[in-house]
Amino acid sequence: MSDQAKLPKPPYYVVCFSSQRTEGDHGYGDMADAMEQLARQQPGFLGVESARGSDGFGITNSFWQDEESIRAWKRNVDHLVAQRLGRQDWYETYELRVARVERAYGFRRTT
Amino acid sequence: MSDQAKLPKPPYYVVCFSSQRTEGDHGYGDMADAMEQLARQQPGFLGVESARGSDGFGITNSFWQDEESIRAWKRNVDHLVAQRLGRQDWYETYELRVARVERAYGFRRTT
Repeated sequence: MSDQAKLPKPPYYVVCFSSQRTEGDHGYGDMADAMEQLARQQPGFLGVESARGSDGFGITNSFWQDEESIRAWKRNVDHLVAQRLGRQDWYETYELRVARVERAYGFRRTT
Repeated sequence: MSDQAKLPKPPYYVVCFSSQRTEGDHGYGDMADAMEQLARQQPGFLGVESARGSDGFGITNSFWQDEESIRAWKRNVDHLVAQRLGRQDWYETYELRVARVERAYGFRRTT
């Protein structure tokens, strides 16, 4: 039921990627699935959480061990192709913020 | 069209709040709107981005000037009421991560 990532204790890093999709799919869904599978195989990958509303605005927070693993993923050849298609076809806008997670806590219903 | 926050240059802070909603509204929608309006009035508030999918999983990334403004918002009396109702009625699970944004960039379609 929950898509919440299971993460180690901080510190670790988060990439906050928010985007407004263009109209239509243009191969986006298949590529998004493929990129998530590929990201999960990268060194330093810790987890990912993603949500997109019916208005096409979405947020993906991906979690990484350190800045170097984030930079390596950005340079991945297959990911570079997806990044180019994102600017060409899939996104009206996006913003990407890299941040160091310093503390974390959560809640889980028990009843 | 876009819900993307306009933010100053880093450094600043992000609170990544991800949650799985319970079934039904239980007053959630009205309270979520009220809390966003209230957050916007807090000292140090910089912006907020939010998305929730049809499966009830959502992410809200709120942006703040510093850690003290985040701690003050957590202690806000009206917000404390909402936090309690969140655990009582609205959320199956949530995770909250506080992170220091170190770099940021974006894309905007021009054609």
